[in-house]
Amino acid sequence: MSGDARRAQIREVAADLFDRSGYRDTSMDRIAEEVGIKKASLYYYFPSKDRLLIEMHDEMIELIIASHEARMNAGTATASELLRGMMTDIISLQETHPGSLRVFFEHFKEIPEPERARVMERRAVYEGYLREQLQRGMDGGEFKPLDIRFATFAILGMANWSYQWFRPGGTATAEQVAAAFWSMLSEGIAAT
Amino acid sequence: MSGDARRAQIREVAADLFDRSGYRDTSMDRIAEEVGIKKASLYYYFPSKDRLLIEMHDEMIELIIASHEARMNAGTATASELLRGMMTDIISLQETHPGSLRVFFEHFKEIPEPERARVMERRAVYEGYLREQLQRGMDGGEFKPLDIRFATFAILGMANWSYQWFRPGGTATAEQVAAAFWSMLSEGIAAT
Repeated sequence: MSGDARRAQIREVAADLFDRSGYRDTSMDRIAEEVGIKKASLYYYFPSKDRLLIEMHDEMIELIIASHEARMNAGTATASELLRGMMTDIISLQETHPGSLRVFFEHFKEIPEPERARVMERRAVYEGYLREQLQRGMDGGEFKPLDIRFATFAILGMANWSYQWFRPGGTATAEQVAAAFWSMLSEGIAAT
Repeated sequence: MSGDARRAQIREVAADLFDRSGYRDTSMDRIAEEVGIKKASLYYYFPSKDRLLIEMHDEMIELIIASHEARMNAGTATASELLRGMMTDIISLQETHPGSLRVFFEHFKEIPEPERARVMERRAVYEGYLREQLQRGMDGGEFKPLDIRFATFAILGMANWSYQWFRPGGTATAEQVAAAFWSMLSEGIAAT
């Protein structure tokens, strides 16, 4: 296994343990045991449990930022397409990083400073991108006049809450769920 | 302070500690100290920490079930009105029970069986009410044809996720937030 693959494996195993047993109650011993490597090897990859927690958060936020920036920089997508893409990205993390995503939502407060402030800044960058596309859609006539703050929370709520119910490999893919959510929010559910 | 008021006070103090320090790391000693009562008094109200956790969950779900049933039994509300009311109820818990609501969403797995199964059944009753109103709205021509499962998760996502960002006493009340969410979901955000 390559170093990157091993790091990714350790992160997901540790995330699953943090999720099941709590961050504080999970020891580096237990993580090493569950991964099936020696404790010294674990420390080679992650010098501390905090480091693991920080990297999980970094990975989640950087994946969705990078995915959005790539789509945005292609320069052809409408605001609707970009916002639906952002919802797809978030829900897709359930398929690729289910444990880390739960840790991302529930164990943010346990990140030590100054790393917590740094992760919070990156989360703010992502929310800024969301608001930017809502504003662009309003300016360009794609959207009605909106309260951007509430629209941001509506989109994040639908997408993020999926970590509580979405099961990868179930009847719908992340892309299908995001498309269904976007269609309801965009067109509305009231009969016309 | 009456017994009921004392119980409610203990639940909110304990919820806040569970939230800040984790369920496992919070002792009955610590809860008694933070409430400012003797440990024997705490045990008089709650014979165990599990009992506290169970009552927090029971209280959250029973409050929103009772509120919906009262509105429903009045018999005059449309499906839209009832669904917007359900969103208001959930977001309002932030104003009245912020600590317990966070525990309700993040510490469900720590409830011991058989109580966990019982709470899950009550959650299912609530989701059933939501689906029932979506179906009723479709049948009665209020709503477009919908995938009821995704519509349920869209509504729960917007409302429930508010526990991550809504601050009581801020610029908007729970009712205003729910009205804004419902308006977007109902009418859609796309320009027509």
